[in-house]
Amino acid sequence: MICNNLSVNEKGHLAFAGQDTVELAKEYKTPLYLIDEDRIRYNCRVYVNAFSKYFSNGSYPIYAGKANCFKRIYEIIKEEGMGCDVVSLGEMYTAIKAGFPLEKAFFHSNNKTDDDIDFAIEHKIGHFVVDSKDELLAINEIAAKHCVKQKILLRITPGIDPHTYEAVNTGKVDSKFGSAIQTGQAQEITGVALKLENIVLDGFHCHVGSQVFDSDTFIRSADIMLRFIRDMKEKYGYVAPILNLGGGYGVRYTENDPVIDIDKNISLVSGKINEMCEKYAIDLPKIVMEPGRSIVADAGLTLYTVGSIKRIPEYKNYVSIDGGMTDNPRYALYGSTYTAFVANKMNEEKDFCASIVGRCCESGDIIQENVPLPSTVQRGDTIAVLTTGAYNYSMSSNYNRLPKPPIVALSNGESRVVVKRETLEDIIRNDI
Amino acid sequence: MICNNLSVNEKGHLAFAGQDTVELAKEYKTPLYLIDEDRIRYNCRVYVNAFSKYFSNGSYPIYAGKANCFKRIYEIIKEEGMGCDVVSLGEMYTAIKAGFPLEKAFFHSNNKTDDDIDFAIEHKIGHFVVDSKDELLAINEIAAKHCVKQKILLRITPGIDPHTYEAVNTGKVDSKFGSAIQTGQAQEITGVALKLENIVLDGFHCHVGSQVFDSDTFIRSADIMLRFIRDMKEKYGYVAPILNLGGGYGVRYTENDPVIDIDKNISLVSGKINEMCEKYAIDLPKIVMEPGRSIVADAGLTLYTVGSIKRIPEYKNYVSIDGGMTDNPRYALYGSTYTAFVANKMNEEKDFCASIVGRCCESGDIIQENVPLPSTVQRGDTIAVLTTGAYNYSMSSNYNRLPKPPIVALSNGESRVVVKRETLEDIIRNDI
Repeated sequence: MICNNLSVNEKGHLAFAGQDTVELAKEYKTPLYLIDEDRIRYNCRVYVNAFSKYFSNGSYPIYAGKANCFKRIYEIIKEEGMGCDVVSLGEMYTAIKAGFPLEKAFFHSNNKTDDDIDFAIEHKIGHFVVDSKDELLAINEIAAKHCVKQKILLRITPGIDPHTYEAVNTGKVDSKFGSAIQTGQAQEITGVALKLENIVLDGFHCHVGSQVFDSDTFIRSADIMLRFIRDMKEKYGYVAPILNLGGGYGVRYTENDPVIDIDKNISLVSGKINEMCEKYAIDLPKIVMEPGRSIVADAGLTLYTVGSIKRIPEYKNYVSIDGGMTDNPRYALYGSTYTAFVANKMNEEKDFCASIVGRCCESGDIIQENVPLPSTVQRGDTIAVLTTGAYNYSMSSNYNRLPKPPIVALSNGESRVVVKRETLEDIIRNDI
Repeated sequence: MICNNLSVNEKGHLAFAGQDTVELAKEYKTPLYLIDEDRIRYNCRVYVNAFSKYFSNGSYPIYAGKANCFKRIYEIIKEEGMGCDVVSLGEMYTAIKAGFPLEKAFFHSNNKTDDDIDFAIEHKIGHFVVDSKDELLAINEIAAKHCVKQKILLRITPGIDPHTYEAVNTGKVDSKFGSAIQTGQAQEITGVALKLENIVLDGFHCHVGSQVFDSDTFIRSADIMLRFIRDMKEKYGYVAPILNLGGGYGVRYTENDPVIDIDKNISLVSGKINEMCEKYAIDLPKIVMEPGRSIVADAGLTLYTVGSIKRIPEYKNYVSIDGGMTDNPRYALYGSTYTAFVANKMNEEKDFCASIVGRCCESGDIIQENVPLPSTVQRGDTIAVLTTGAYNYSMSSNYNRLPKPPIVALSNGESRVVVKRETLEDIIRNDI
């Protein structure tokens, strides 16, 4: 199994967080998102402990809320001592309603509206991560109205291609995010920020991409960023207190994805950062990282019910489920890989190859192509798709007017709804 | 301009349905979907009139609700005398709440759950479009419980590749939809349907893809389907009353897309169908088509506000807007083309080339790459993206917890909200 919260029970059913997924599907109906709270806590602790062991005092990991954002998740990450990043009013509002202190939040986004900025300052956001000069000036102006000196980081583009998929590749010079070192724009915006009356420049941020499985990428970007910090010290006499390295480590969607020892990797990054700071003669900054996917992905699993099996001899086979690109658009968007099982037939031989497709009127509504399944799969069976805790619920839509599934949280052998299933009334609630 | 509901007014602003888009953006805020009701009615009439002129009595076009589904749209298509297709409980519910008679609805989907089937029969759906044998048997069983003889069409895969984009290519033998003629499965399911006690087989359906700009595709699929009807007459003595050819004609997203005369094309298809029916010695069936995109696409336009301009010398330029893949995921999904303008600077020279990108924390959040714009574009300007009436609102998500924009309907110089903007309370309403 790709994660140790998965097993097969005595009935031959898939168990998740020790609970029978077939029973959960019956109890809560499908489609259904499950979230293993104990696994989220475990993943948080890996980062929190490694940060306190290896990085300088005041360093901490923050949860990238865009991976999966609902009230309960903020309660958990608060209890686990993590900060968070937010990317919109909606995420801030969710965090606030969950009692999460916004002082520990970093506000991202390449386009913050004046309303967003106003709301964030009003609610005492810890840091803005400033994406552009337009935004920097807007924050300064709105902070002045609030008589506040607002802490910010500047988002810098280090110019690294982490060799990951284009759509999640954010550190290259031509990125829509941040200001590039290579073009001189990073240095320029630093100069502007340092002069602004209502801005406190608290350091720099970079992000080089998602699904990173080695520390080389972090080390290379840290190297570029630390040299930039040295250059800013030389040019402006400015010593950056915080270096936010963005992102987190990759997660396993299939058996082909590597297993990664996060603690060991963070130790490695820390060692290199210490060496570099010495070499560049700069103070050790506080380090922030922003794991999102690696906190929640393997804590999530989606259950569906099979509606029909289609065998097209000499062509291909289909298993249609009662969800699809509406609750998991990642195959449609990126061709993402997933592992899937017939949850009620775990011990049967996988002698049938089929594409698992969604119920939307769209050919591209595919969860995964060519999945090995038992040939006995039939209408009414339960399909489990693994590692769906990140970028599934958060990216879900109501295409075909399908209601969003609920999220049921599992912990210590108990289950409870933390996000309710959308109703038909929900679907039309804003129609006049 | 790509559609005649677009013009430039005396202020140099883009006008849509005769109304100043910059004023509309101010009044209703952005992001904002506009829908030109008069254009929807015009598009409906083109089909309705052509159908009554060229096809046999009882033929009619039905609106494919998945293109854009909210209550008001059903009021309009009802008034214009069109039927509709629905693909889910949510779409049926919306239609019912808008007072649309479900007898004129065809229920599609490759996976109808027992609950869906029950609801549809309970609410006297006109036809099911049956996708598979699993579903056929389920409908028969549930219809029996309701003591109903349920009218259905069988979805048949004619095996045509219309040379359109893979994700919208639905007529090939290996499609997830329908039963293929080529494999003998279409003939087999026809035999099964004819024997079932609570099923009335009312004909056949096929669909060969979206964005079809010629009649050749419809004529080729009609030919295959009419030969199939002949074969079924010979084999089972069954005369199919209805032939549903699926889909509608393509729409213009850019000046490069062809202009199509729908009336003329339907006349052409009709002529060929008459010839073929004579040749194959079968009765002329009633014809149904399912335009969705071509009813609503050019009746829609989205307005955004510019947040920042990013010039990366020797690399590329970005204009960030306050919406993105959340309200229009079509570039992210398919690399779709769109035409965009700075709505408040229509008369300025387009001397600047920029990618229009959304506000989501995702590199793939792009509306369109390399759009010619005036170099004076700045924070606060209004961006208009054209032809967004189809598959924008219906595919919208709350990624990054962004609320869905409202839909404002324009008609006869007046504007009014027909779908309200989502609020922050809406966003967390199901969180526990």
